[in-house]
Amino acid sequence: MSLVVQKYGGSSVANADRIRNVASRIARGRDAGNDTVVVVSAMGDTTDDLISLAHQLAERPDEREMDVLLSTGEIVSSTLLAMTLKAMGHNAVSLTGLQAGIRTDTQYSRARITSIDPERILQEIGKGNAVIVAGFQGVNSQMDTTTLGRGGSDTTAVALAICLGASVCEIYTDVEGVFSADPRIVPEAMKVDTIGYEEMLELATYGASVMAPRAVELGQAYGVPIRVASSSSDSVGTLICKEGSMELRNKVSGIAHDTNVAKIMVIGVPDKPGIAREVFEPLARANISVDTIVQNAGIDNITDITFTVARTDVVKALSIVEPVGRSIGAARVTSDESLSKVSIVGTGMQNTPGYAARMFRALAEEDINIHLITTSEIRITCIIQEERVKDAVRALHKAFEVEFRQKQ
Amino acid sequence: MSLVVQKYGGSSVANADRIRNVASRIARGRDAGNDTVVVVSAMGDTTDDLISLAHQLAERPDEREMDVLLSTGEIVSSTLLAMTLKAMGHNAVSLTGLQAGIRTDTQYSRARITSIDPERILQEIGKGNAVIVAGFQGVNSQMDTTTLGRGGSDTTAVALAICLGASVCEIYTDVEGVFSADPRIVPEAMKVDTIGYEEMLELATYGASVMAPRAVELGQAYGVPIRVASSSSDSVGTLICKEGSMELRNKVSGIAHDTNVAKIMVIGVPDKPGIAREVFEPLARANISVDTIVQNAGIDNITDITFTVARTDVVKALSIVEPVGRSIGAARVTSDESLSKVSIVGTGMQNTPGYAARMFRALAEEDINIHLITTSEIRITCIIQEERVKDAVRALHKAFEVEFRQKQ
Repeated sequence: MSLVVQKYGGSSVANADRIRNVASRIARGRDAGNDTVVVVSAMGDTTDDLISLAHQLAERPDEREMDVLLSTGEIVSSTLLAMTLKAMGHNAVSLTGLQAGIRTDTQYSRARITSIDPERILQEIGKGNAVIVAGFQGVNSQMDTTTLGRGGSDTTAVALAICLGASVCEIYTDVEGVFSADPRIVPEAMKVDTIGYEEMLELATYGASVMAPRAVELGQAYGVPIRVASSSSDSVGTLICKEGSMELRNKVSGIAHDTNVAKIMVIGVPDKPGIAREVFEPLARANISVDTIVQNAGIDNITDITFTVARTDVVKALSIVEPVGRSIGAARVTSDESLSKVSIVGTGMQNTPGYAARMFRALAEEDINIHLITTSEIRITCIIQEERVKDAVRALHKAFEVEFRQKQ
Repeated sequence: MSLVVQKYGGSSVANADRIRNVASRIARGRDAGNDTVVVVSAMGDTTDDLISLAHQLAERPDEREMDVLLSTGEIVSSTLLAMTLKAMGHNAVSLTGLQAGIRTDTQYSRARITSIDPERILQEIGKGNAVIVAGFQGVNSQMDTTTLGRGGSDTTAVALAICLGASVCEIYTDVEGVFSADPRIVPEAMKVDTIGYEEMLELATYGASVMAPRAVELGQAYGVPIRVASSSSDSVGTLICKEGSMELRNKVSGIAHDTNVAKIMVIGVPDKPGIAREVFEPLARANISVDTIVQNAGIDNITDITFTVARTDVVKALSIVEPVGRSIGAARVTSDESLSKVSIVGTGMQNTPGYAARMFRALAEEDINIHLITTSEIRITCIIQEERVKDAVRALHKAFEVEFRQKQ
């Protein structure tokens, strides 16, 4: 008998019929003899509805209150799922993040899990219960509710899988698995059967939107295999795990894109040590994630600093960077919110020359202008105009198609 | 500086505008220098919506899960109210039942408060916060959420007022206070300025539906004055407190009615000791409240037992009483769900002859048939056909109008 942790996303529990479907899946797993811990997200649009209610009452809702408010969405779906299982004749119990022993730091709206005390979960498993845990939430040292930020339920699931020594963490969602590109843009995109954590991380971070990067990272750190699959079909999905062989790694596993990109430029800054720090330290303090950073060492000791942030952070970022720009003598600060990222992702690209060149050629042949380029060990990313992003994804998928076929 | 506990019902926080209105009232109280602890119910129809969602998934939803589910409604409204106050520039914090230290027994859906540990509330008051407590909920010894049953938020408010030594517990609702009869039925009904706990209890139990009887009882036991008033006006409402003078008590303070009444008759039972026990013990075990009980000692050692229950309990009560009826040799068990109660309530009636006679005459003059009669020290109740209840209330209000005038 092994222990499996499953996570069902908001679209999988969006209404009574879908909750019944999820309950049936869980019931089948239990009939097969597995102990089951299930993590659920809030039903469908619940979280957005609660956010909009809060914004009717406060321009900037208090973060502590907001976290308590949003945590109710997952509590509702967890109780509904537990009572459905019980009505089907299965033992089940719902637990809040507090009851599941999920402790976090005190950073509201993006708390980090600091520890899990699994006592209550183990006790309920011992009683033969399927344990349904409200995802996305924990409590801080004051026993105040915190939420884990975007994709928080994925993080809850992987953290529980680690803590409980689960054989696998299954993430059920509305897609069949990880694809070589977004199938809505590239109809001939292929499902990937297995993928390494790092590649998945690059794909997820760069917009494959299948599961939260934080959760993949956590799975990687503790070596827990994660299966991503559809909650409405029986296909095996994609298994995220350690790559089997060190040398026989894939080259390009997929094309990722992300349209939530904005560029901020601090132009004409006198070039002296400490400039970058003066720009980026206050952004970090304000909890704004800065992605790509490019500094062009200019002539005459004048330099430009360009970086990208999520579009949702642009207003806040500008309110911080504009006064900094004045204080460091920048000529001006500008922003551009019409950008997107497109990336090719694959382990082993770095040791095989020519991938970057093939990527730039494919974009050039489509007349797509590249604003910024960044690379990691397993990824090459170009920042381009948003209006060309679909063309770019299709062109790149075509250019690297042969690689995907090798992989399958 | 005194401490005031306020409670706002579901209609007072039904939408963003009303939440803002409540926040303004709380803010005014704080500007006047009072420490404030506020108890809120769930917004408008939230609880009913959650119940209907649960019934889509389970015919008889698990009670533990149901309590966790329903408790989210009050958590939502408490956070929204706290963030509204903060947005207005007032210090405020929401607390769940768990955080407010409200401990209960383990009886889901109708838990009783066993103790309150006010540590966190006092700590937040010490920080200068208006403390907004989610009503209707507590936790049992397992730290599982329980709910307090109908009118549970009133009970939360009075219990907190007692525990915190508040000068008054203010219950804000959608009516102006306690009236001599339901103003929707008797337009000339008068608001009562002060009323004793017992009279209020009879009025509340018998359907004045202004506040939960349990909460009045609790206030009486600990001598906490309770003010019932409208959340949308500045009128003083009705103060429920110890009667000022022992002898100068009111006679009739009001006419109450309740349409949630069903009668069950166990007919033709061999009359021997222990019969009543055999009928009522299993009902008590099933947690069904039995109201009026009448046993007609018959001829030939045959007796009929008649009692009333809430209409919502009829199906469950019959499923218990029918087999009992067979086992004790009853001729048959019948039920009638089309009944209502109408009562006159007032301290001192018992020592002044003629009240019952005046009541029966008033009903007779309207050709209203009386099914059952019961009395308490301060109440005379007749059970009549539901279709005549409005006529009965109007006739009785008219018959005792002179008493109300004396009272004012």
